[in-house]
Amino acid sequence: MNNSSPLFTALTSGDRGALGRAITLMESIHPKDYEAKISLLSSSIPNASSSVRIAVTGAPGVGKSSLIEHIGIMLIEAGHRVAVLAIDPSSERTGGSILGDKTRMPALSRHSNAFIRPSPTSGVLGGVAQMTRESIFLCEAAGYDRIIVETVGIGQSETSVATLSDLVVFVTMSGSGDALQGIKRGIMEVIDLVAVNKSDGENEQLSKNFASELTAALHLLHGSAEPPSVLLTSAATKLGLDGLLEQIESQIKLSVSTGDFSSKRKKQLELWFEQATTHSLTQNLRRVADVSELHSDLLRQVKDGSIHPFVAANLLVSKLLSPLN
Amino acid sequence: MNNSSPLFTALTSGDRGALGRAITLMESIHPKDYEAKISLLSSSIPNASSSVRIAVTGAPGVGKSSLIEHIGIMLIEAGHRVAVLAIDPSSERTGGSILGDKTRMPALSRHSNAFIRPSPTSGVLGGVAQMTRESIFLCEAAGYDRIIVETVGIGQSETSVATLSDLVVFVTMSGSGDALQGIKRGIMEVIDLVAVNKSDGENEQLSKNFASELTAALHLLHGSAEPPSVLLTSAATKLGLDGLLEQIESQIKLSVSTGDFSSKRKKQLELWFEQATTHSLTQNLRRVADVSELHSDLLRQVKDGSIHPFVAANLLVSKLLSPLN
Repeated sequence: MNNSSPLFTALTSGDRGALGRAITLMESIHPKDYEAKISLLSSSIPNASSSVRIAVTGAPGVGKSSLIEHIGIMLIEAGHRVAVLAIDPSSERTGGSILGDKTRMPALSRHSNAFIRPSPTSGVLGGVAQMTRESIFLCEAAGYDRIIVETVGIGQSETSVATLSDLVVFVTMSGSGDALQGIKRGIMEVIDLVAVNKSDGENEQLSKNFASELTAALHLLHGSAEPPSVLLTSAATKLGLDGLLEQIESQIKLSVSTGDFSSKRKKQLELWFEQATTHSLTQNLRRVADVSELHSDLLRQVKDGSIHPFVAANLLVSKLLSPLN
Repeated sequence: MNNSSPLFTALTSGDRGALGRAITLMESIHPKDYEAKISLLSSSIPNASSSVRIAVTGAPGVGKSSLIEHIGIMLIEAGHRVAVLAIDPSSERTGGSILGDKTRMPALSRHSNAFIRPSPTSGVLGGVAQMTRESIFLCEAAGYDRIIVETVGIGQSETSVATLSDLVVFVTMSGSGDALQGIKRGIMEVIDLVAVNKSDGENEQLSKNFASELTAALHLLHGSAEPPSVLLTSAATKLGLDGLLEQIESQIKLSVSTGDFSSKRKKQLELWFEQATTHSLTQNLRRVADVSELHSDLLRQVKDGSIHPFVAANLLVSKLLSPLN
């Protein structure tokens, strides 16, 4: 297209700095950046059919980063370009991102075919997921064809991560009955593959037992549906890494052949459109009528139980749309 | 309040016909009924602090209705007034509600302190849940203090049911490795209690084994968090019914004492307000600008991948708000 924004042109030509700046722009919550976002995305078409989006989730400390680093290098060696995006809801609390450090993946970050993006340091959870969607798209526009979205297993991000990836890998490790501690309810329902990580040294037998229990539990809870495979992995000994990558690629290949891949993407685009519409509507309406005070007032009354939500909603919308009447 | 609508006054005075008509009004999707809905709810305050909302979910054929009928009668004998509301997403397909038959609970429906409401026979899933919220509120306004929401375990209703109840009971039964067949992923994450039903006769030993497996699986998958209790029940022999009711009441009592009950209700009210706002906004905006054609056109392009969702959303919102500019 002729009317491409200069930033978009730069990022598609391989300028990693431009890609970084474009993602930063999309993450901005300032209303003044709204037009620039539209302009950045207008010059593009979200044609990402050749990319694969892999979500990797699990509690802190199970070794997600090392696993991603190894998998990332293997993907690059197989001819792919790899982008790693981190979603870290805890960064809201710590004021900085614990995942946002490139030195966590030193070998991968040295590769010219890798792009590692720290987590945004602020914003609401849903917002982070929304921003991650745009970031995924920008990485794909920049030519990355394997997108790995890393998320720690706290907060609501695990389930929303399923709405922006093609496949979800859950990383866990043996150790105790509390092995799944810190994992939010909900994640078990969206995973496609389980990696029982750190399966090395004296941990090996424990890992095997844990994997068996997990397999049985998943089998029972999934009923007649195919439960996710459970694999033993170790970044230290490279155990199971080939197998993990093969499983990822074969599951994707299968879902492409059945048409599930494409129909899931379409559903995600539809959801994305819906969420973007609500977002845009709210942004635009607030420019016309400032309802923030009324909104918080009504919300307080709703939570008090002193007004019915349906009635409160009607009052809010009447005020929002008053310029129309 | 002085300005109560006659219908609302009638239903609060114990007129069950009025309650039925009020629910029918709330379920209406005709724009012409919008003002009447507002007027019905405006004369009320959603003060439902003494009610308990129990969701009962499970696959077709596991015996939910008989279980609810027994529990309902026990609650009435304990001095409560019981309303049963059914959500049946399958009624959309069959053209009529399989749950909507009062003869399914003959003994309960004869009680003067029971109100049984068939499922709405049309509407989208989310819509059904939205309507059920208003129905719950109307039942409470009519003096029912134990609201049982029955839903079959297909479709998306199982997880949304958690957003409109205080406690979720999952009903299942032994039989095969497919015992959970038909249960949508997601339900395991929101349940508070499991009833392994039809635990009688030659099924008893199978039920015990199944309950043990289920307990182990839930324990493992819930990690350090308290997994839901698994109880053996039978409507035929009344096995476990007292225990089930005790568990329900004691879990509610505990969550009231910790404040969880009230904070969950507040969160649900907030969500209800948010959803009602989106609903009302859409209804009102469509009166002003007809965007249905543009919307389906953009949606098609979004799913084709020929336009970016963010850009499409902006086009749609610009059109919606064009009367403002």
